[in-house]
Amino acid sequence: MSTDLAPTLDLDALRDRVDTVLAEFLRHTPAGISSQSRAGELTRALTDFVLAPGKRIRPLLCVLGWHAAGGAEDEEGLWRMAASLEVFHAFALIHDDIIDNSPTRRGRPSAHRAFAARQRPRPDADAFGVHAALLLGDLALVCSDALMNSAQLSTRQRQTVLPLLDAMRGEVLMGQHLDLLAAGRPTGDIDEAMTIARLKTAKYTIERPLHLGVALAGTDRDLLDLCSAYALPLGEAFQLRDDLLGVFGDPALTGKPVLEDLRSGKATVLMAVATRRATPEQRRTLHAQVGRADLGEEDCARVRRILRRTGARDTVESMITERYERALAALDTGLLAPPIAAALRQIAHRATIRTA
Amino acid sequence: MSTDLAPTLDLDALRDRVDTVLAEFLRHTPAGISSQSRAGELTRALTDFVLAPGKRIRPLLCVLGWHAAGGAEDEEGLWRMAASLEVFHAFALIHDDIIDNSPTRRGRPSAHRAFAARQRPRPDADAFGVHAALLLGDLALVCSDALMNSAQLSTRQRQTVLPLLDAMRGEVLMGQHLDLLAAGRPTGDIDEAMTIARLKTAKYTIERPLHLGVALAGTDRDLLDLCSAYALPLGEAFQLRDDLLGVFGDPALTGKPVLEDLRSGKATVLMAVATRRATPEQRRTLHAQVGRADLGEEDCARVRRILRRTGARDTVESMITERYERALAALDTGLLAPPIAAALRQIAHRATIRTA
Repeated sequence: MSTDLAPTLDLDALRDRVDTVLAEFLRHTPAGISSQSRAGELTRALTDFVLAPGKRIRPLLCVLGWHAAGGAEDEEGLWRMAASLEVFHAFALIHDDIIDNSPTRRGRPSAHRAFAARQRPRPDADAFGVHAALLLGDLALVCSDALMNSAQLSTRQRQTVLPLLDAMRGEVLMGQHLDLLAAGRPTGDIDEAMTIARLKTAKYTIERPLHLGVALAGTDRDLLDLCSAYALPLGEAFQLRDDLLGVFGDPALTGKPVLEDLRSGKATVLMAVATRRATPEQRRTLHAQVGRADLGEEDCARVRRILRRTGARDTVESMITERYERALAALDTGLLAPPIAAALRQIAHRATIRTA
Repeated sequence: MSTDLAPTLDLDALRDRVDTVLAEFLRHTPAGISSQSRAGELTRALTDFVLAPGKRIRPLLCVLGWHAAGGAEDEEGLWRMAASLEVFHAFALIHDDIIDNSPTRRGRPSAHRAFAARQRPRPDADAFGVHAALLLGDLALVCSDALMNSAQLSTRQRQTVLPLLDAMRGEVLMGQHLDLLAAGRPTGDIDEAMTIARLKTAKYTIERPLHLGVALAGTDRDLLDLCSAYALPLGEAFQLRDDLLGVFGDPALTGKPVLEDLRSGKATVLMAVATRRATPEQRRTLHAQVGRADLGEEDCARVRRILRRTGARDTVESMITERYERALAALDTGLLAPPIAAALRQIAHRATIRTA
């Protein structure tokens, strides 16, 4: 465990460094990925997507895991690995937006919509947009590997890190597949909604990035356990917050319309709790409205009322608070240097008490 | 260069060994990729897809490149790397079939069609099928990495092999994107059709797999150049043959309907040559028919007649022969052990004089 760290860690400075690595990597795309030819449209779109402002939560957690395990301040491989998580995340978002038919991402048109817009008035512009975005996501995944490969890890590092990376990538895909299977009419299955939240968010967004950073520095079982004790409740809280914002959020802040989750019938804990507690009449309304592709603002307002009146919204808020506190408590073991614990507390706060 | 090889290399035996590695890998999917949960549908679909009979041309070329460079008979890492190319190819095919809206693959329903069929009578079964296939392709890509990572290459091997792998993956995506941009009405742009053939086939299917095998054993500039001199014309010939089969092939043998390439308006050399040579009336017919999503059998027959009457079909046959001969000539330099050269001749023959 490192003890010679500065008393505070500046998360914004860490994020800037991640952005620098990303920008540098995208300026010199790997051989074979030309930015000159007509196909250069794809690399330019990837650059725009990846460099758009974002929380960079996965790279930050990876860097913090590394510091927590006593990794030296300036190892180039760490930064490349951390940044590669953001490129991988671009892949996940681009394909997720296709699946959810999301019109926007971070307040701008989603990738498939942007490609489609550029092809009008071609009659097949929408299909073209989806197919170009599919390839863009593929390119992001391939590039995340290329960036990871450029980290030049030692054999020891590769042996500890790569199995975690493979697991993380498999988990998020399994989560997306469960998400896809579960979408549609609300079912009241809280366990399933929680399983999806664990795979898609708790493990993918919080636990695995932290573990990757720790594993790069060495294998410290106690530290890995501590990270899990922090990451899993926090990740669940993060997803629960996301689900609330997806229905009650302010589109001007979240950058996405609040109709989307309800139209796709996303299987959230929020909806499962409401469905369980609903009166027969409320349940009929939920069944009739949620998962309807043409759901309007007024129907949406009726669903929101049910989410409030059944107490589902309050219950989810309590679940977030309980998990947030459990995550913070996990940090109080003395195993972490104070600046690391402080940074993790700050991230927990940002992830759960947020509006976007 | 290895000289102690058996006088002949049994390609079928090499392919069986690749299949054994694939089956073994898919039986023990990496942590995080469960085959137990509901999401197990995805891993089962991947196993079925990858283990379906195929030519395994990329793994075979990788193994031959390794032998050509004097690699020892039994290095586990070689077989894993070679097999990972087949899993990567599953990714490319699954996503390509989505983009081309192909109903079949290898005589069976394509992945997106198979997923859709299992969801009927769900009203959004088709969209579900595409989205599940999108995730299946993603999973194939992630699994190809996991298999590659399990090859436990040395630092030296990683430094020579990984940049080639990254380049190969970028190239095939660039080729697919150009393919997507070029599809639609025929243009007569032979150069563009040839560029796509080079990226999607010559480099991806032939040159890079050979180079990867060579690079795993060491870096031999002369041998890499020889491989390119064989691979690039052969790969072009392979694609030209594919284009002919896509229009004139027997669906019972190719496993895909002959309408597909014409309906999508695939930008092939065949079509570009015909467009250039067409009379004004023939050109009007090509423009009106090719790229029409509802093209019927009779329209198709008219297009085929034009491809024959303009001499485009014969020209493409000649181009295949010329390239096939150029590829064989590249082998006659004495740099290759006779069994390797014989195996590469056999592959060249299979790739160009085929009916499926």
